[in-house]
Amino acid sequence: MLKVEHIGIAVKSLETSIPVFEKLLNTPCYKQEPVASENVITAFFQTGENKIELLEATAPESAIAKFLDKKGEGIHHIAFEVADIYAEMDRLRSEGFILLNETPKKGADNKLICFVHPKNTHGVLIEICQEIR
Amino acid sequence: MLKVEHIGIAVKSLETSIPVFEKLLNTPCYKQEPVASENVITAFFQTGENKIELLEATAPESAIAKFLDKKGEGIHHIAFEVADIYAEMDRLRSEGFILLNETPKKGADNKLICFVHPKNTHGVLIEICQEIR
Repeated sequence: MLKVEHIGIAVKSLETSIPVFEKLLNTPCYKQEPVASENVITAFFQTGENKIELLEATAPESAIAKFLDKKGEGIHHIAFEVADIYAEMDRLRSEGFILLNETPKKGADNKLICFVHPKNTHGVLIEICQEIR
Repeated sequence: MLKVEHIGIAVKSLETSIPVFEKLLNTPCYKQEPVASENVITAFFQTGENKIELLEATAPESAIAKFLDKKGEGIHHIAFEVADIYAEMDRLRSEGFILLNETPKKGADNKLICFVHPKNTHGVLIEICQEIR
């Protein structure tokens, strides 16, 4: 784990939440990007070396829609940048963590990503990610 | 908001969760510190320029005990470092955010802290903090 790449926050509507986070963080949203495979639209803010990622569901089967139904709006996951996502997936498996995808998948922001099951991480949904070069 | 200073995670027991986060983050817990005024014990991990802070309640009236009862273990708050906590509190109030304490209070890790009510931040509990010099 090199560093926190971003913190993901589930919101009902980017349209209403982006202005709130612009005021809160005192920095503009610099990008919106759909991730069709995940049925979400994302919006990004830079703060120090980290990003804040807002996530709005675009379909009822989206993991974000399910999260909102169950828990309401709030912090959804922490994403850590890794140098080699395949090696890190092997390391996490060997430590007994359960990965939610067998192979890395394409996420927002030009990244390969993999999620770790929160049942083995004290309720924290962890993403690991690596920039696609 | 200068940067994410730390991410706070509510756990039932530091004793059982510290070894898990040491494996997950692949870095040792470098400090444990009680915060008597908040009825918590904290444990810290460094990742990049950010810290991960685990929080265990030491009394039933602790905000962490109430969070665990209501939501279970998981991500509790995001803390942002600010250059001048008094000026940032004034700025947030003027933007319509509701602060959970009127004046900064002493937190863990030699910090002055203030929390922002999550009802105006799409369910995200935000802490702002400044190092005590």
